[in-house]
Amino acid sequence: MKRIDLNCDLGESYGVFKVGNDEEILPLVSSVNVACGYHAGDHNTMAHTVKLAKEAGARVGAHPGFSDLFGFGRRPIQTTPEDIYHFVFYQISALEGFCKLNGVTMQHVKPHGALFNMAAVDPIMSEAIAKAVKDANPDLILFGLSGSELIKAGRKYGLNVANEVFADRTYQPDGTLTPRNLENALITDDQQAVEQVLQMITTSTVIAVDGSTIPLEADTVCVHGDGQHALLFVKELRRNLAEHQIEVASLL
Amino acid sequence: MKRIDLNCDLGESYGVFKVGNDEEILPLVSSVNVACGYHAGDHNTMAHTVKLAKEAGARVGAHPGFSDLFGFGRRPIQTTPEDIYHFVFYQISALEGFCKLNGVTMQHVKPHGALFNMAAVDPIMSEAIAKAVKDANPDLILFGLSGSELIKAGRKYGLNVANEVFADRTYQPDGTLTPRNLENALITDDQQAVEQVLQMITTSTVIAVDGSTIPLEADTVCVHGDGQHALLFVKELRRNLAEHQIEVASLL
Amino acid sequence: MKRIDLNCDLGESYGVFKVGNDEEILPLVSSVNVACGYHAGDHNTMAHTVKLAKEAGARVGAHPGFSDLFGFGRRPIQTTPEDIYHFVFYQISALEGFCKLNGVTMQHVKPHGALFNMAAVDPIMSEAIAKAVKDANPDLILFGLSGSELIKAGRKYGLNVANEVFADRTYQPDGTLTPRNLENALITDDQQAVEQVLQMITTSTVIAVDGSTIPLEADTVCVHGDGQHALLFVKELRRNLAEHQIEVASLL
Amino acid sequence: MKRIDLNCDLGESYGVFKVGNDEEILPLVSSVNVACGYHAGDHNTMAHTVKLAKEAGARVGAHPGFSDLFGFGRRPIQTTPEDIYHFVFYQISALEGFCKLNGVTMQHVKPHGALFNMAAVDPIMSEAIAKAVKDANPDLILFGLSGSELIKAGRKYGLNVANEVFADRTYQPDGTLTPRNLENALITDDQQAVEQVLQMITTSTVIAVDGSTIPLEADTVCVHGDGQHALLFVKELRRNLAEHQIEVASLL
Repeated sequence: MKRIDLNCDLGESYGVFKVGNDEEILPLVSSVNVACGYHAGDHNTMAHTVKLAKEAGARVGAHPGFSDLFGFGRRPIQTTPEDIYHFVFYQISALEGFCKLNGVTMQHVKPHGALFNMAAVDPIMSEAIAKAVKDANPDLILFGLSGSELIKAGRKYGLNVANEVFADRTYQPDGTLTPRNLENALITDDQQAVEQVLQMITTSTVIAVDGSTIPLEADTVCVHGDGQHALLFVKELRRNLAEHQIEVASLL
Repeated sequence: MKRIDLNCDLGESYGVFKVGNDEEILPLVSSVNVACGYHAGDHNTMAHTVKLAKEAGARVGAHPGFSDLFGFGRRPIQTTPEDIYHFVFYQISALEGFCKLNGVTMQHVKPHGALFNMAAVDPIMSEAIAKAVKDANPDLILFGLSGSELIKAGRKYGLNVANEVFADRTYQPDGTLTPRNLENALITDDQQAVEQVLQMITTSTVIAVDGSTIPLEADTVCVHGDGQHALLFVKELRRNLAEHQIEVASLL
Repeated sequence: MKRIDLNCDLGESYGVFKVGNDEEILPLVSSVNVACGYHAGDHNTMAHTVKLAKEAGARVGAHPGFSDLFGFGRRPIQTTPEDIYHFVFYQISALEGFCKLNGVTMQHVKPHGALFNMAAVDPIMSEAIAKAVKDANPDLILFGLSGSELIKAGRKYGLNVANEVFADRTYQPDGTLTPRNLENALITDDQQAVEQVLQMITTSTVIAVDGSTIPLEADTVCVHGDGQHALLFVKELRRNLAEHQIEVASLL
Repeated sequence: MKRIDLNCDLGESYGVFKVGNDEEILPLVSSVNVACGYHAGDHNTMAHTVKLAKEAGARVGAHPGFSDLFGFGRRPIQTTPEDIYHFVFYQISALEGFCKLNGVTMQHVKPHGALFNMAAVDPIMSEAIAKAVKDANPDLILFGLSGSELIKAGRKYGLNVANEVFADRTYQPDGTLTPRNLENALITDDQQAVEQVLQMITTSTVIAVDGSTIPLEADTVCVHGDGQHALLFVKELRRNLAEHQIEVASLL
């Protein structure tokens, strides 16, 4: 039986600013990426989120991002590899505390937003991140865009990696995501998105925007919990996965 | 032979904003309190400071404070015990990461500024802090104002505690510090400050502002590294401690 | 015909963090208090909110607060009168820019959250605020808790003031609000809340928690737009005001 | 008699974090760029700095930057033109308040750090900045790198502009600054730096790194006050300017 991990971002609220539908999406995923207080999240939210995830039986990962609450970590910020190493390490360490407090073994690290996207094509940034993850805990699994520089850096540092794929994004012939500013970047038809996921899991390929079929590893699928449509899509995806005898399961 | 710990705050720089003379004060103290990114300090500074302290042979402690960079953690902020518990725990966890990375055993936790002062007289805040310390690591020593509520809370939670005394502050008959807004709060004469410390260490008493002699435990003395006078005072204090066969030594 | 101003807080979103139902509450009020980037709001939100308010015909005021995004300005922070003067002045100046850009005359200043509550009983803080308002623009109306120190300070500095009353809060015999931590602080029955407002407007009195009738000036009523019940209550209040021939109108 | 403006950054302290030697550099320059609370500076520092500048007879300008205290506004952050327009406008408006409070006419706007450098080569960012300056006050002079996109955008929007040149940086044959990461980017010899400034002022040319002489307008020279060497250099520069009958004078 095939297996696939479903992951989503969680714990992105900050103070009174509430984000997401954490309690609704949680039962639908196998792994969660918990914001660590830099681009979103705070110490109270982290504590609460780790508890929620434990109760729901989902695996917990750190979701470090740029220190940019205003931009929600989505804006590229140019900084040094040393700075990246230290802030990723800091955020993992902080979440590690809350995991231990709850008797939870941290499963993975998935960089957030602009950090994730920049690292995907930047080997120096990727190595800074991979080294921080390894130094924090060599048992952590590094999540990166499937086939990206981050995946390569993780392997180089001896980490287990998880190739992440997207249900609602189209792919270029070279395996990268179509940039969001291009017209055909998003897949808005749910059935098409489901089929893309099924193909990626069962055949390790995807059909690129030029119609060519390209290879692509799929260990984990990124899903979202913000909004009712997002929640319905995940339910629909799970129904289809079950029909195809694909088990939703975390990586550890 | 009597022993006393000398502690100072360290690693309070933030980005390009430089604070203190960390490299000059470090050889003169036995324990350092490292800012953890909330009231001061940042991930780069923390990494650097733990290394510096290790090289100098000083013991490392976490120095958690209010999330108030603008006020440097010196402004009382009213918040909940749950919030205090979580932010103290978060800051300890983050520093713990950098300690482990450097093979350093964290020795203690000393709350910073307004958090330290408010906790001294507030048993609820003190319990939130003591619980966070214990849950992070029950081997950590909790630093608090000598005889304060924080010391009591630490003992209640089974923690080892260190009664902190001040060289340059006067004491009230009830053992509390004379508030800074009162005229006779500070001891500006270095020799008088040295003598106060010697008396506190050798007799476990101090002369209060009304002339009465009161009991006071002295496990660690707070000194400062900001400015040349502060550095000279610590040297003078150490010279006097040596003359009286009092060894400067960390608590672990 | 009697008149009353209805005011609500607006523009409290920060980056991707969305707060409130600004477009729904706006047509129901005559004055809005726009967050200025310290406790909430940001430069983009401010620009957008001033435009929205202008289109809706509501009067615009500055809503300065403590620099405490995490606590949403609701946590008392102890600071100096000089600091308060400067940060209130800064926030008014920033919003003044966006008002001028849109050809809007700023009507008023209403301090936010903990700043509002602390000033209500602190004449020194109140004078710092009143002086900042006057120095920014002596034509601005200062909103304060009805009969509070802030109202007194405003009058002392020659400002026009607006006594603010609350529909859903109970009053003490001395005219202050019942603290939120007491059981009977809130009025949860909508009809009772409406009746309290009608009495305050038509008789300049309110019935305190001990049953006594006390004098109270009512120039503006604070209403809320967060949540469907809040919106329904404002509609119900307006219906009752209309029935009693009380016109909802801004102060300028 | 030739004239030249000397400008320096001022008011970059934040809370207890002190930066620069504002009182020492101030008498040596004709224009100052005041940080506005985003990349550095705060409401108290701004109020104090405008007063200092007025007393010293220096002209005041706004120095808006990215909202990045940790990176001191020196890190490129990718954001939208609309965001840039609003945050530049916000910062100018806030400083405008303190200028009016002190009876000071704001002279200019000089973007800070990464915002300045990115705008120099980005016409879209430059237009967002120029539009914000014009909308805030069309009498403001826009400072930009000599001959840069920012200067062009300022002219397009009908603003007066000031071409800024650097004493201690070398120039490329196309008139841009040699990037800092290249070896020959900095002029470390004071006499050479002085001569470069004199040539730029008297001949409107500079010798590029390849030995060619290229045209370059020089309306204002950027100098620094951080460190004793920087202060000595400005004094030496002024002595040389005086010898060559070049008057140091602000632009208004």
